[in-house]
Amino acid sequence: VPPLRTAGVIAVGSELLTPTRVDTDSLYITERLAEHGIAVRFKLVVGDVREDLRRAVKQALARVDLVILTGGLGPTDDDLTREAVSDALRRPLHEDPASVERLEARFARRGLTMPAINRRQAMVLDGADVIPNAFGSAPGQWVEQGERVVVLLPGPPRELEPMFDALARERLATRAAGTRRFTRVVRVAGNTESHAEERAKPLYEHWRREHRQLEVTTLAAPGSIDFHVTAIAPNAAEGAAILAHAVGELRSVFGADAYSDNDEAMEEVVGQLLREHGSTIAVAESCTGGLLASRLTDVPGSSAYLERGIVAYSNAAKTELLGVPADLVAQHGAVSEPVASEMASGVKRLAGTTIGVGITGIAGPDGGTPAKPVGTVAIAIEGPWGTRVRTRVFPGARDQVKFSATQAALDDLRRALMEVLEEIKEKE
Amino acid sequence: VPPLRTAGVIAVGSELLTPTRVDTDSLYITERLAEHGIAVRFKLVVGDVREDLRRAVKQALARVDLVILTGGLGPTDDDLTREAVSDALRRPLHEDPASVERLEARFARRGLTMPAINRRQAMVLDGADVIPNAFGSAPGQWVEQGERVVVLLPGPPRELEPMFDALARERLATRAAGTRRFTRVVRVAGNTESHAEERAKPLYEHWRREHRQLEVTTLAAPGSIDFHVTAIAPNAAEGAAILAHAVGELRSVFGADAYSDNDEAMEEVVGQLLREHGSTIAVAESCTGGLLASRLTDVPGSSAYLERGIVAYSNAAKTELLGVPADLVAQHGAVSEPVASEMASGVKRLAGTTIGVGITGIAGPDGGTPAKPVGTVAIAIEGPWGTRVRTRVFPGARDQVKFSATQAALDDLRRALMEVLEEIKEKE
Repeated sequence: VPPLRTAGVIAVGSELLTPTRVDTDSLYITERLAEHGIAVRFKLVVGDVREDLRRAVKQALARVDLVILTGGLGPTDDDLTREAVSDALRRPLHEDPASVERLEARFARRGLTMPAINRRQAMVLDGADVIPNAFGSAPGQWVEQGERVVVLLPGPPRELEPMFDALARERLATRAAGTRRFTRVVRVAGNTESHAEERAKPLYEHWRREHRQLEVTTLAAPGSIDFHVTAIAPNAAEGAAILAHAVGELRSVFGADAYSDNDEAMEEVVGQLLREHGSTIAVAESCTGGLLASRLTDVPGSSAYLERGIVAYSNAAKTELLGVPADLVAQHGAVSEPVASEMASGVKRLAGTTIGVGITGIAGPDGGTPAKPVGTVAIAIEGPWGTRVRTRVFPGARDQVKFSATQAALDDLRRALMEVLEEIKEKE
Repeated sequence: VPPLRTAGVIAVGSELLTPTRVDTDSLYITERLAEHGIAVRFKLVVGDVREDLRRAVKQALARVDLVILTGGLGPTDDDLTREAVSDALRRPLHEDPASVERLEARFARRGLTMPAINRRQAMVLDGADVIPNAFGSAPGQWVEQGERVVVLLPGPPRELEPMFDALARERLATRAAGTRRFTRVVRVAGNTESHAEERAKPLYEHWRREHRQLEVTTLAAPGSIDFHVTAIAPNAAEGAAILAHAVGELRSVFGADAYSDNDEAMEEVVGQLLREHGSTIAVAESCTGGLLASRLTDVPGSSAYLERGIVAYSNAAKTELLGVPADLVAQHGAVSEPVASEMASGVKRLAGTTIGVGITGIAGPDGGTPAKPVGTVAIAIEGPWGTRVRTRVFPGARDQVKFSATQAALDDLRRALMEVLEEIKEKE
């Protein structure tokens, strides 16, 4: 029997087609399948409509080796997965005595008589293997159709997950392709998505020429381009080796722009560098309104380096709390590099830390001018490297400008800390 | 032209077939479509594989009136939605000069030259109408194929949502069918989900007895239970009337616990109350690390009331910046009601505002003790009502504790502000 290489997941239930419900079973299934070298080619959500379901199963079987259906195994009239699969495979259903017994026992344990309606849940496709359900009433089914497989599982995660785990251990392991998929994520700052892609392209071509078993997907987030690098390998050790090599090559393309290859957020990377330095930090924020301090404190143990944060939203607060001269604000405007620098040095001096950050800008939607449009943000970082200050214009709505500004501030910090670390190493 | 009654949503992107990413665009789309009487019959996620995508579009067009594709409109090689739809509809692509111009202008505004790769985003299907994208580079497309319609939209929600709204107003409204669905959300604080459900149950029964065309879905978020109330009605005016009545009844069940019936976040509701009062506010945070200030400043125009925020992460900062007596910290511990109260009154006094907030707690994962476990947070609010202080224990991981604590602080503020407003009204 050939291995199972591709899968499709069909989530059944009209409630999953409403604005408030999302199918999450498929995430769990996708992860388990990847570990066994089975790639999910599509995910589909269909309502409780027998003909829609029948067609979905037929089309899926034409495209993938393994079709997994979740949901629609309940006892009521609108639970139609069993019937639809029976239609699609042209296999009749029969009542499975062992399942009837388990169902009756389940009700009996709770002091109840099984309602007649629940007998439907014991209907099994001819030739199917029954997968017992330890946490609910609907049994699952495993049906081999030629070289392909159809699996029926209940929708509730607490029922589905243990059943799928057992399935993966006992059946998928023996039908797995031998090649498995392993992924690492390389995160890059300071590049637009298209610039990052252009820089990575020669490497992709190099990999293609060398026939390396690698796939890359790029995801753009504000202030971060994430390269998901997947290696196809027969086992975990080989996968890790292929990935280590590829990740190293990708990092060397991006140099200091690559800030993580280990699924860390920017604030974790910065926190790690601050720890390595034995540095302490204080931040003074205007337009970001506390978001930089909040991101820094999202990292467990950040109290080791973050001493304080000042949200100086009013000009008075900038003068009183940070010692920014009022005439400097009057001369250059609150959103200016001199004010950002004074904020950074003020908070550093008052907190007695080794590093100070100052951010001032226009988050919008109001307050922009032709000279300083919405999104204009000046960021200053003061530390052993002296003072560095830079003005950028971030696109997007208020929350994006806020986030992008904190991301840029963290990235500025990261680069400065890395340079200082390198200098120290060179001197040693 | 017959009305559009059924739709299918196809989310494009191999990253949506990984264990970490879920398509949420379809939830937004489903809700908007329901308002126009268009039912979503299926949702499909496919990877960046041209042939898979082509087939998906063809099969979808055979089943539903309206096919909406999200994602795959980026500039890179794996963005294949344009090409796949071109294959499926047998319509060639051409470069749209107006789109090229908009793309170049977008890069120029950020002081950049458009990379050659981005020209792909200006490729448009013959006969398609271009939907401009105000928040990103990929334009959308509306293509009529006989009586059916195919729509291409970018994946990022901040780009998709305003584009889809414009589309719904301008085009779907004229192609919509008879009965439509209208939803409003009532948000409730200070209740667990099951408690909230129990309180709402008699109302549901009342509605059933009266045969009202209403449906309710409950969604639990940290610090908020959201009731999505949907009315089925032939037009917007009737829908609004049915909803207004139902929302009023639901609000009267929950009294002051109901904080919004208009899709506002807690920080928006509090911001509105602060404006109504002409109040100003300053906040002093420890465990929430700036998140409260950041949420307050997420609201445009918040500089009218937020004067400053202090993140006093170290005990020294609490004493220096907020005047919390060091012996008070020594006596009661940094996480205590006396310290929270001193933080609130200190920041209020120093900032010269009418209201002060103090938050101190243990966000975890470390730092808990048997007497003060992880999640313990003391919140004090000082204002015209005097000082109110309360200790709660929030469940969950570090970020959940942080969020729940800010939600509780905002809710405390909201209730205090409402009481004061009522007293003023009574006196008048």
